[in-house]
Amino acid sequence: MVKPAPTLDDVAKMAGVSTATVSRCLNEPGKVIETTRDKVMKAVDALGYTPNFAARVMAAKRSFTIGAIVPTLDNAIFAKGLQAFQEALHSRGYTLLVSSSAYKPVVEKEQIRTLVARGADGLLLIGYEREDQIYTYLAQQNVPALVAWAFDANGPVPSVGFDNHAAMYAMATEAIDRGHRRLAMISGACTGNDRAQRRLDGVKDAMAARGLSPDALAVIETAYTIEAGEAAFARLMARTPRATAVICGNDLLAVGALQTAKSLGLDVPGDVSLTGFDDMELARIVHPTLTTVAVPHREMGQTAADELIAMVEGSSPGRSRLLETRLVLRASLA
Amino acid sequence: MVKPAPTLDDVAKMAGVSTATVSRCLNEPGKVIETTRDKVMKAVDALGYTPNFAARVMAAKRSFTIGAIVPTLDNAIFAKGLQAFQEALHSRGYTLLVSSSAYKPVVEKEQIRTLVARGADGLLLIGYEREDQIYTYLAQQNVPALVAWAFDANGPVPSVGFDNHAAMYAMATEAIDRGHRRLAMISGACTGNDRAQRRLDGVKDAMAARGLSPDALAVIETAYTIEAGEAAFARLMARTPRATAVICGNDLLAVGALQTAKSLGLDVPGDVSLTGFDDMELARIVHPTLTTVAVPHREMGQTAADELIAMVEGSSPGRSRLLETRLVLRASLA
Repeated sequence: MVKPAPTLDDVAKMAGVSTATVSRCLNEPGKVIETTRDKVMKAVDALGYTPNFAARVMAAKRSFTIGAIVPTLDNAIFAKGLQAFQEALHSRGYTLLVSSSAYKPVVEKEQIRTLVARGADGLLLIGYEREDQIYTYLAQQNVPALVAWAFDANGPVPSVGFDNHAAMYAMATEAIDRGHRRLAMISGACTGNDRAQRRLDGVKDAMAARGLSPDALAVIETAYTIEAGEAAFARLMARTPRATAVICGNDLLAVGALQTAKSLGLDVPGDVSLTGFDDMELARIVHPTLTTVAVPHREMGQTAADELIAMVEGSSPGRSRLLETRLVLRASLA
Repeated sequence: MVKPAPTLDDVAKMAGVSTATVSRCLNEPGKVIETTRDKVMKAVDALGYTPNFAARVMAAKRSFTIGAIVPTLDNAIFAKGLQAFQEALHSRGYTLLVSSSAYKPVVEKEQIRTLVARGADGLLLIGYEREDQIYTYLAQQNVPALVAWAFDANGPVPSVGFDNHAAMYAMATEAIDRGHRRLAMISGACTGNDRAQRRLDGVKDAMAARGLSPDALAVIETAYTIEAGEAAFARLMARTPRATAVICGNDLLAVGALQTAKSLGLDVPGDVSLTGFDDMELARIVHPTLTTVAVPHREMGQTAADELIAMVEGSSPGRSRLLETRLVLRASLA
């Protein structure tokens, strides 16, 4: 049933050029003059030619494909950074393939294997916490990887990200300095998620630094969704004494908490203050507007793309970059 | 610099099984008993073996990889449906690779070529409007494709989606039947986007059916973002006579419009009514809550996954499925 696939020869004949020229058009288009490239690409299109990519990878030593594995495609948490990552890759002639692990390490591992098997030149991974074996595997396969959304100067691979601990430490300190003594936190699930764990540690360390007992922090770990934030906030508000400020692990959780506050008849920030993390569009649209941590999503995506391409092309051994976050003080924290 | 890659033989020797068994574990894991599969997968892990996928594709006639190309990863527009699509694929042993075209046909075409070159067994595409050549190419390559987020019983490939025209026709009819005579629309860019075009046509046809002139519809086409909705709404409100109801092409545009209404001191729905499309989480969080069209994102993702796998595995020639949308009447339409 499968038709014989058109070959490099067929394309070369139709375009009236050598097979080496066709190969160059596909692998290093920047080195071929435009009229020739147009002729070749027209023949490629007309014949429906797909490069034999094993051969192509061998010829070019790369496939011009970069893989990214993110914990979720839902809710735009990673969308803005990925979009910038993709735009920067595209401008350099690389295509991005994205896979989502649903926050499951075993799924992430399968997807890393799949992307390597599909010939990805390099991988973007979120956070650095995963089995050592995976880093060994990537080194064996000679596939460069870069971590984003977290920063660890001594990690197994370079990272382009921000300091989740420092960002949340600053937010908790701000809340304490405004007079809050009874803090609570709605956190993402920390197991296997270094970003969530570091944010939680940041709050606890800020409390300790200001003379509050970190053990007094009421913590609920849950999924990073609005619904989960709604449920967690209801549970926190049922406790006595009630917290006066609830630090949320991201903006979705904070927006959920805000919804529940409204349905419970609690005034934000009059009765209880709320803070988020990420500075998603949601944060400025809800009422009251959300005090949160702005993350340099676009800068991170662009910088990560530039660095990963440099690693793939052999012009950089991989340099880590720590990006700045900043507190965005709006109305939800009093 | 590249180490010699471990071979199928190496894995078979380490696991103490035949190469045929290793091959079966990788291609049809369901047909191998668990203890054997565990032994083989441990050897695969230990050696960092990556199947020679050209050989694997030939042996299994597939790669267990499905590609999806969506117009954007931003703003969760496609996230919920994709998440369901991925979960259904994963439960059947397939990995999803996603690519985003930034609403650019030329980028989509490149990505289709890349995913086919990377060995994708089948592709999910959004909407049916694209060059005929692409469908010809996919047929030549023998790669099944399925369209989602739109429905066309007579399209070049099967579709699992909903009727964008009928959904917006129902929304506009609802607005007219509530007494609105001066309608305006903030639409997504229609060029190359059949979903946006059909939604706009739905509004115009509803006006005609109720005796209003479709030419009287003030239309602004813009990007599907909150910021674009803010700007477009300000332009619409500067016109006289002012529209009493603004139909928005999606919820992001409507939320943007709502923000501008607030900053202009206009009461929604007292001074002007607003409607959205998609029923994103945003729609119930903003104040007033948004009247919108609920799209069966999860059902669409699941159904599309089942159908595309059936096409890839040869058990279905590809059946189209029309899914229902429904109006969600909340507070923003008076």
